Amino acid sequence: MTIDNINLHSYPGSEKTYMHGEIHPDVKVGMRRVILTPTVKVAPDGTKTVRENEPVYVYDTSGVYTDPDVTTDINRGLPRIREQWNARRDDLEQLPEITSEYGRQREADRSLDAIRFANRHRPLRAKQGCRITQMDLARRGIITPEMEYVAIRENMNCAALGIKSYITPETVREEVAAGRAVIPANPNHPEAEPMIIGRKFAVKLNTNIGNSALSSGIEEEVSKAVWSCYWGGDTLMDLSTGANIHETREWIIRNCPVPVGTVPVYQALEKVDGSVERLSWEIYRDTLIEQAEQGVDYFTIHAGALRAHADMINERLTGIVSRGGSIMTRWAVIHNEENFLYTHFDEICEILAQYDVAVSLGDGLRPGSIHDANDRSQFLELDVLGELTEKAWVHGVQVLIEGPGHVPMQKIQENMDRQLDKCHEAPFYTLGPLTTDIAPGYDHITSAIGAAQIAWAGTAMICYVTPKEHLALPNLDDVRQGVITYKIAAHAADLAKGYPGAQVRDDAMSLARYDFRWKDQFNLSLDPEKARRYYVESHRDDDHFCTMCGPNFCAMRISQSTAEECAK
Amino acid sequence: MTIDNINLHSYPGSEKTYMHGEIHPDVKVGMRRVILTPTVKVAPDGTKTVRENEPVYVYDTSGVYTDPDVTTDINRGLPRIREQWNARRDDLEQLPEITSEYGRQREADRSLDAIRFANRHRPLRAKQGCRITQMDLARRGIITPEMEYVAIRENMNCAALGIKSYITPETVREEVAAGRAVIPANPNHPEAEPMIIGRKFAVKLNTNIGNSALSSGIEEEVSKAVWSCYWGGDTLMDLSTGANIHETREWIIRNCPVPVGTVPVYQALEKVDGSVERLSWEIYRDTLIEQAEQGVDYFTIHAGALRAHADMINERLTGIVSRGGSIMTRWAVIHNEENFLYTHFDEICEILAQYDVAVSLGDGLRPGSIHDANDRSQFLELDVLGELTEKAWVHGVQVLIEGPGHVPMQKIQENMDRQLDKCHEAPFYTLGPLTTDIAPGYDHITSAIGAAQIAWAGTAMICYVTPKEHLALPNLDDVRQGVITYKIAAHAADLAKGYPGAQVRDDAMSLARYDFRWKDQFNLSLDPEKARRYYVESHRDDDHFCTMCGPNFCAMRISQSTAEECAK
Repeated sequence: MTIDNINLHSYPGSEKTYMHGEIHPDVKVGMRRVILTPTVKVAPDGTKTVRENEPVYVYDTSGVYTDPDVTTDINRGLPRIREQWNARRDDLEQLPEITSEYGRQREADRSLDAIRFANRHRPLRAKQGCRITQMDLARRGIITPEMEYVAIRENMNCAALGIKSYITPETVREEVAAGRAVIPANPNHPEAEPMIIGRKFAVKLNTNIGNSALSSGIEEEVSKAVWSCYWGGDTLMDLSTGANIHETREWIIRNCPVPVGTVPVYQALEKVDGSVERLSWEIYRDTLIEQAEQGVDYFTIHAGALRAHADMINERLTGIVSRGGSIMTRWAVIHNEENFLYTHFDEICEILAQYDVAVSLGDGLRPGSIHDANDRSQFLELDVLGELTEKAWVHGVQVLIEGPGHVPMQKIQENMDRQLDKCHEAPFYTLGPLTTDIAPGYDHITSAIGAAQIAWAGTAMICYVTPKEHLALPNLDDVRQGVITYKIAAHAADLAKGYPGAQVRDDAMSLARYDFRWKDQFNLSLDPEKARRYYVESHRDDDHFCTMCGPNFCAMRISQSTAEECAK
Repeated sequence: MTIDNINLHSYPGSEKTYMHGEIHPDVKVGMRRVILTPTVKVAPDGTKTVRENEPVYVYDTSGVYTDPDVTTDINRGLPRIREQWNARRDDLEQLPEITSEYGRQREADRSLDAIRFANRHRPLRAKQGCRITQMDLARRGIITPEMEYVAIRENMNCAALGIKSYITPETVREEVAAGRAVIPANPNHPEAEPMIIGRKFAVKLNTNIGNSALSSGIEEEVSKAVWSCYWGGDTLMDLSTGANIHETREWIIRNCPVPVGTVPVYQALEKVDGSVERLSWEIYRDTLIEQAEQGVDYFTIHAGALRAHADMINERLTGIVSRGGSIMTRWAVIHNEENFLYTHFDEICEILAQYDVAVSLGDGLRPGSIHDANDRSQFLELDVLGELTEKAWVHGVQVLIEGPGHVPMQKIQENMDRQLDKCHEAPFYTLGPLTTDIAPGYDHITSAIGAAQIAWAGTAMICYVTPKEHLALPNLDDVRQGVITYKIAAHAADLAKGYPGAQVRDDAMSLARYDFRWKDQFNLSLDPEKARRYYVESHRDDDHFCTMCGPNFCAMRISQSTAEECAK
């Protein structure tokens, strides 16, 4: 597998470093340390002063791909860092074989050997009678390794703030116990580095990849997965709908250092050749188990799109634009029955609880246009999601609530307010929202405007949108643009929320600008390669000005002379 | 001159159309009409229903470059549409020759013939004792052709709203008279199509072009100017600081269909070879006259950055990042005198009033980093700008107030609130603001997030930022990306403000999506060429689905089946 000629083994000017747990000494949290050059000033009399600049720590989603001491091989998969934690637990059992019927069929099909991920593991599941989810454990007062891991991970740049920490493992435990935060951590995905989604923590971003019937192969999808982590994706949804979904997913999960989510109804529908009519609870149920045992960390489940909502489609300009929502309401209308994800929701939760798969309650009726934003069906579904949240929590299942979509700026706050109210503060996870419909080709931007705003208001995770949204599937460069754009939105929201440690990087960048330390500026930026390339393409030397203003018009240079004068 | 192989003579699927004035019958406002294909539905029994879709009108900044009936030639300049209006006025006089000393020197210099724009005109100026600005006229109750022009221009898609108009010429007059809106309309730039900047009207965007000592020639700058208008720039600032500024500006103005602004101190500083110390009021004054007679419509003047503010630079992380601000405070410190733009502000206004050049009061102390946002010196300068606003209005000079810069989201609203309060509701005109410092290479996006927010709050015009900000000068593609990104921010703000007519285009786009009318989607989008290219690159046919979801997973297709079923 090649990743577009980028060497994933390092970020420029940075070191991979690890911090260890105190409660759990084998917790080892990777982070990126950006090494800065000193500030050098030469006074008019030639006196030189040198001031060291402290390194800046950056939250690192790239896993061991950027650790020069680890050799990765996608044919073997990533190191299984959580395996030892699982092994210590007495509430998990290793099954002798996989449970799902479909999974067994695929296993038995020798024709798939050529595309199969070779290195297989037997699935873990809750022992009979044990409640194993992070939420269950948190409620019992247990600080798991996963909880300590995320606490360390969130405490970025404490040294610069002059404090030991601002997020404690106990805070994490409380938030998870209350349902205000989610740690997606299926024991069957031990390759994933734990992370937390909740509005008390740094804003996270999800990336979507996945083939459709018309494009993309396994290698391309794995490349996109790793690539999205390299640029900063916190979680990854595999939305594949084409051929060999089962095998593609296995490759992705085994090589993915972040939690992986899916929309199981996509595969269930593939199993009935795309016939919505032939979908059934039994096929869906088997799909849940199949995917849970592969290690999917969260499922989007469109259990809130009800039969009655279908009658409201005609009030809308763009009907239902969620794939899952359109499938489930269609099924309900064809069969004249209630959405089976709603009627079987308790059984779904029982399965999810056994594997600690979080449920991401899908907004099947999210608006697909500015016109339809905040309409009756959208908010009626949100009420149902609130009801389902309480049900899931009874089972100890962790819950995320998905949100829109297309919403003009003045209607964004209402989405957040209602979600907090109706869904009992379960973390909100929104797609954008796009703040206008008129810019296909730039919907990463139309939506970043909305994403920054809603994240500031309290949304815990924002789902990226790439420039290809509404037009085509993203390629590697689109994934990169989508991730960086959403890192911007998430970081802007962290700053606005006053999240501790966030502004350390901005301040380091600004000082590097004022000092004309160009390399530090590149290395501190979200996309060092692009920043450097833009600069180098038009620059002639490395002096104290740039091509934008030229030597006589450099405000910072003039300003520094003035400052020196005034400081005398 | 070639503009990157783009045929500027048309937008795809669109017609150039004109609306005529009623008060002034020779007012003829160009706009773009996007022609849509009909919605065709085929029922299961084969019955076909066809519903026509009304055309959508789009505010058009491209001038006659997109009128197939007009042949343009940059060597001759654009048609001088306002010349007949000027000719009817009895308050203007045509001077026998240009007034400024520098202008005459350049005119006399034969070595410049090769780069000189050939088609010269004698300058217009207020007759002795006449008050000629749009503000003066508005105060006297006169609805000028310019005012009627902008009223028509703002009334986009009234037919779709079922009304005759939502902006009347009288509203325009009132807003201009009160100083809440500005029509930059120097009689010496009769090529410009009038436009209005005020928070009661659609949000406008300014583009910056201009060479520096290190790059760019005349042809490239004229290309960028026309290009920025093609994509949607409402005004244009020529920030050139390199060689032949005078001649470059002449070429730009004569070929620019939108108002042109400059920062005169840049050229004044060039005249003293970049020596801040040698700058003087006399040189600056001659520069104002030189540029006003060429037709510059608004000047950025950094008259609010005072000597006392220089002492506050050391409180900041990034000092002064405005070129004009750094120059003027430096001058004040070197000479230990007050900024001469402040002390000579009344004389400046007298000159500006004679040519109806608007003043854009520069924010010389705008923050250059998240760290410095909303600090003491920034807001002290804003207070001074408020004082200068009142002075300018005494002279009938139209006023814009420039704003930041780098501001985190939670500090944006305060900028707007204070500006309205301290500057007496003069239109606010902001650069971004950038909402984080850590994304060089993507600062069009970091700033669009802030621009959308501040425009929603009431900022009348937003100044674009290109992907090259902080790194290099923009090329043609950067200009395009910057303009489209800011069109998004401006339009998102128009929607959020509930500006009449804005959502018509969104709704038309959304319906085209739901109907799978792909060509209409491209033609309605801000960047039709890119939208179409992204689609075509990955698409196999023109059926009722796309590569994103494939045939079985198209939510809109499934939703339509459900809607038809439910409508029975």
